[in-house]
Amino acid sequence: MHNTPLGPVVPTDRAISALRPLPASAVRLDPAGLLGGWQERNRAATLPHCVDRLHEHGNLDNLHRVTGDFDGPFTGWWFADTDVHKTLEAALWAGNVSSFVAETVPLLEKVQDPDGYLVSYFQAGHRDRQWRELPSSHEMYTAGHLIQAAVAGARTSPADPAVQQLLAVARRFADLLTERFGAGGEDAIDGHPEVETALAELFRVTGHRPYLDLAARFVALRGHGLLGPEGRFGQRAYYQDHRPVREATEVTGHVVRQVYLLAGAVDVAVETGDSELLRATERLWESAQATKTYLTGGQGSRHRDEAFGDPYELPPDRAYTETCAAIGSFQWTWRLLLATGRSRYADELERLLYNGIASGIGVDGRSFFYSNPLQLRTGHDGSDEDAPGRRLPWYKCACCPPNLARLMASLHTYAATGTSSGLQLHLYAPGSFAAAGRAVDVATAYPWDETVTITVTAADDEPWTLTLRVPAWCADARASVNGVPASFVEDGWMRLERVWRPGDRVELVLPMPPRLIAPHPRVDAVRGTAALARGPVVYCLEHADVPTADFEHARSAGGDIPGRDLERTPSTASQDTHTAPADFERTRTARDDAPGAGFERASGVAFEDIRLDLGVPIGVRRDHPLAPVALVVNGDLSAIPYFLWANRGPGPMRVWIPLVPTTPPR
Amino acid sequence: MHNTPLGPVVPTDRAISALRPLPASAVRLDPAGLLGGWQERNRAATLPHCVDRLHEHGNLDNLHRVTGDFDGPFTGWWFADTDVHKTLEAALWAGNVSSFVAETVPLLEKVQDPDGYLVSYFQAGHRDRQWRELPSSHEMYTAGHLIQAAVAGARTSPADPAVQQLLAVARRFADLLTERFGAGGEDAIDGHPEVETALAELFRVTGHRPYLDLAARFVALRGHGLLGPEGRFGQRAYYQDHRPVREATEVTGHVVRQVYLLAGAVDVAVETGDSELLRATERLWESAQATKTYLTGGQGSRHRDEAFGDPYELPPDRAYTETCAAIGSFQWTWRLLLATGRSRYADELERLLYNGIASGIGVDGRSFFYSNPLQLRTGHDGSDEDAPGRRLPWYKCACCPPNLARLMASLHTYAATGTSSGLQLHLYAPGSFAAAGRAVDVATAYPWDETVTITVTAADDEPWTLTLRVPAWCADARASVNGVPASFVEDGWMRLERVWRPGDRVELVLPMPPRLIAPHPRVDAVRGTAALARGPVVYCLEHADVPTADFEHARSAGGDIPGRDLERTPSTASQDTHTAPADFERTRTARDDAPGAGFERASGVAFEDIRLDLGVPIGVRRDHPLAPVALVVNGDLSAIPYFLWANRGPGPMRVWIPLVPTTPPR
Repeated sequence: MHNTPLGPVVPTDRAISALRPLPASAVRLDPAGLLGGWQERNRAATLPHCVDRLHEHGNLDNLHRVTGDFDGPFTGWWFADTDVHKTLEAALWAGNVSSFVAETVPLLEKVQDPDGYLVSYFQAGHRDRQWRELPSSHEMYTAGHLIQAAVAGARTSPADPAVQQLLAVARRFADLLTERFGAGGEDAIDGHPEVETALAELFRVTGHRPYLDLAARFVALRGHGLLGPEGRFGQRAYYQDHRPVREATEVTGHVVRQVYLLAGAVDVAVETGDSELLRATERLWESAQATKTYLTGGQGSRHRDEAFGDPYELPPDRAYTETCAAIGSFQWTWRLLLATGRSRYADELERLLYNGIASGIGVDGRSFFYSNPLQLRTGHDGSDEDAPGRRLPWYKCACCPPNLARLMASLHTYAATGTSSGLQLHLYAPGSFAAAGRAVDVATAYPWDETVTITVTAADDEPWTLTLRVPAWCADARASVNGVPASFVEDGWMRLERVWRPGDRVELVLPMPPRLIAPHPRVDAVRGTAALARGPVVYCLEHADVPTADFEHARSAGGDIPGRDLERTPSTASQDTHTAPADFERTRTARDDAPGAGFERASGVAFEDIRLDLGVPIGVRRDHPLAPVALVVNGDLSAIPYFLWANRGPGPMRVWIPLVPTTPPR
Repeated sequence: MHNTPLGPVVPTDRAISALRPLPASAVRLDPAGLLGGWQERNRAATLPHCVDRLHEHGNLDNLHRVTGDFDGPFTGWWFADTDVHKTLEAALWAGNVSSFVAETVPLLEKVQDPDGYLVSYFQAGHRDRQWRELPSSHEMYTAGHLIQAAVAGARTSPADPAVQQLLAVARRFADLLTERFGAGGEDAIDGHPEVETALAELFRVTGHRPYLDLAARFVALRGHGLLGPEGRFGQRAYYQDHRPVREATEVTGHVVRQVYLLAGAVDVAVETGDSELLRATERLWESAQATKTYLTGGQGSRHRDEAFGDPYELPPDRAYTETCAAIGSFQWTWRLLLATGRSRYADELERLLYNGIASGIGVDGRSFFYSNPLQLRTGHDGSDEDAPGRRLPWYKCACCPPNLARLMASLHTYAATGTSSGLQLHLYAPGSFAAAGRAVDVATAYPWDETVTITVTAADDEPWTLTLRVPAWCADARASVNGVPASFVEDGWMRLERVWRPGDRVELVLPMPPRLIAPHPRVDAVRGTAALARGPVVYCLEHADVPTADFEHARSAGGDIPGRDLERTPSTASQDTHTAPADFERTRTARDDAPGAGFERASGVAFEDIRLDLGVPIGVRRDHPLAPVALVVNGDLSAIPYFLWANRGPGPMRVWIPLVPTTPPR
């Protein structure tokens, strides 16, 4: 057992590992910065909010039901215990052995069966179904989240009695899994991967090898049809049982299940020295990035089955891009960064954090998106779950809020790594970072400001390397050490090696002019558009900054105005001239022109009519009421960071903005 | 009871009605024409195929189970009886009181409860759930399809004993509904509308007013929350209980339920003289056409909940566009045509028939699409149901095949109408059409050929009007009567009034040069593309005509080749220069250029790389092995009618083709 507080994912010394996580105690994020602010908001708002919702929504009653202290019905999904476990994990990463932990852990021990089983849904009323419905039961998934809570406790407060009790509970469940499903036991897997990485982490905490072996076994058993034959909806991919991980050529099926599985596969690969499996996960990561990942880092193109789509199927409006999927991708990507040290993984962590993850939580810290689309249309049908217009305080399937809480609680541990040769900074935020007697303070207003000032606060007499990530979006990174330029960038890293002295000062400048991003030409859904970004932050236009738009236009007027849809001749009012050459369909004009044109005239400009004019420079605005840095486009429209959308009421939004076509020079 | 064979939808003499259907016996489609050929294929292939599948898939065993003649388990969905009923209906519209009818009707009578109830799932094993799960039970929906089969029998073979037995069975079920749910009874509706139009039709056949009153009551009870509170997935819209029909401003929710409901609402409106309700259905039709209908006439933008999307949410790849939805839209639209006589409804019937409906069935008549997307991507995941690459012989939810069978069996009755003042031709096909002593023969190779020759074969001495629909896609329709030009077009009709003599000959020419269709500028999903059409037929490109495309490219290569997806700089090889001005994102180039470029080079041209060059004329090809008329684009690529796709193996297809941007003149 470690004595130093640690964070998530601490590979053993024997693991394949290019970079090592820093002790949690060696990192501090300043709450004045964006990341530290998020962490503080998590502590002050999100965590208490989650605990309250668990009480309100019956998750704790479900546990009391097993011990006979509550006689109402079971509430929520059969995996409702996992929301308790994730909230426990979040509280423990926050270093906060609160009354919630103190009350809940003894309850869990009381609920647990003598053999270690602990899934309240099946324990009270559904004993006959125990272990019999693995494709859908989430029993191992539930065990996994219990184990991860215990791992968090063991890494942060190992001496605490409640933590020791929780670890014992988790180990009993893990031992039951090992006995029942380990080598020589039943060949079985859970329909929802998650337990793999939990078991690997528990091995790391306890040194008990059978946990790792079981994780490896679960990874190896995938893709052999153990969860039943292919169903109507392509269920084998949904359950991640379609193909062995090391043979798969693309990510597919249910996104959260896929990325959780691959995070577990990396853990298994690095701990067992299985470089072939590690390469398979890297290959899948590259494939996912190349053809199935949104600009926000989000993944999941289909609402149906919460799934990946085909390559290049990336609709902005029906992007499912579940918050949990982004968090799962973050976990997978972090593991690949530790294993390989490749900067593109750190880039992806940053992209996810400032976009696809941050969008999942409102500025109040108490409202959440389950799905994170890149566009909400004028006339959206208003269903909050199926494509949300506003963040909700909780969900019937409440996986995302406590998932955000546990990530935010441990956020500091992802900012930097250490090796014997130095310290590597991946995420730029004000705070302090230390490893093995080497320490720096960071001052910056990143990502709003391009300058990062790093001051060495502790060093030994040996030379070591301060490695700074240079984001791929940054074309002209430069640095100086004590005023002397030192800017060589290689493979996405700036490596500054010397004998450092306390007080040495590095100034890193990551120029972040506003950028226009063109979509990949095969992404049909956003052809003819561009997106705005500045630094790592993707921007969007939303209703509140477009006061002339008639947001309810299509909805209220749709029934009144006859007019053909798809065969309509683009009117001359449309500036989309590149799609309307002279010989285009004009045959409906005579009959439909009047009502069709009326449709345009009736209610002014709808949100969808906004076009981005490339002839107008993009400005920067620092007095926007919501965003520290807004962009100004088309002369007067404010674009805000995507992650800040939907904090000013529901309404249309879009990341990919149609272009005003360039006209031929005269 | 009528003595003349009739088709579906025969409003009473008191109904609001601009046009009257012709007696089924007064219409004959020549099997040498496309529509007549479909009808013949339906008789020879589809109908026997459906009967065989009902035996094979246990639908008949489910009925025998109730009578104790089968002791296996129930098979399929709880509404599996409806596939039997729809096949019965199809057989009866085909005028074919076959052994299937003769065997099945007595079985249904035997299965029926004394009180009239007849839903085999609930009758054997689930008695306790009868009438208790109306949101999902489909009990009235099942009753509706039974009734429609009986209506078909009563209209086509009223004297046949099996038909009389079937009508008695259907009436007993209808009487049970009337007693239980009629005025003074329970306020309740079925989660799946369908019974409304069936009851109205049964009223038309029997003259029994309570059936119509019940249909009116069911329409009026919608939108008041009778099916429970709003659920997680916006279930009230899914069940069509979100808003009263006459107040609704847009079509929404589950598409088939919506269009079936609105077809029933038209029946109720015209039979009760409720012009306000009729106007509401027209308004909803206009709204649907303006913002939620695909180029093929298909409806349903979302796989999830098989639902309409937001206005202008019309993705071609994830178009759900269920075959049954297109058939339901056809039924709704036909009713509006009869009620109003507006040509745009007839135009829509034609569009649906040659595109969104015809695509649902393979050239063999024995394979079917449930979903009819407008694009299938390179690297599609291959699941047949969730976005099909090939038509299947049957489906677990087999609603579509027998729905196609019943439409095709009655297809002749939709080609023309009659009024006291004349005859109206809506669908052009070789055959003969007659009403009230007036008759014409039609000769044409439409839709492949633009000329339609109509010869009067019977006439009286009074002047009457031969009305010819002029499709909205047709800019320069012209006609001659006995060689004398006569071409005045008004409101989409060419009305030729005179004292006709047998042998009088009308030549109608509907010029059909290939057309390029621009998408509505608010349909983001197909911006920067165009579609091809000729006459009423929408065309597509598919794999078999693009031999150089590497269809499995993305799938097989996806894992091997690193390369950023969305932030990739369009290479100079891409012709999509209008999305890549000089100041676009280029920062990833240095790091990713080599592998990114490799992605392009590795495997030649992928299907998605095809661009339509507007500078090249569109040709017509009449020697294509599959299509009587193919179009030739980009000099050598063949485009085939959309409805003929996927008859040559699975592979990529697209209707909307990206444009090669026009370059500035030098």
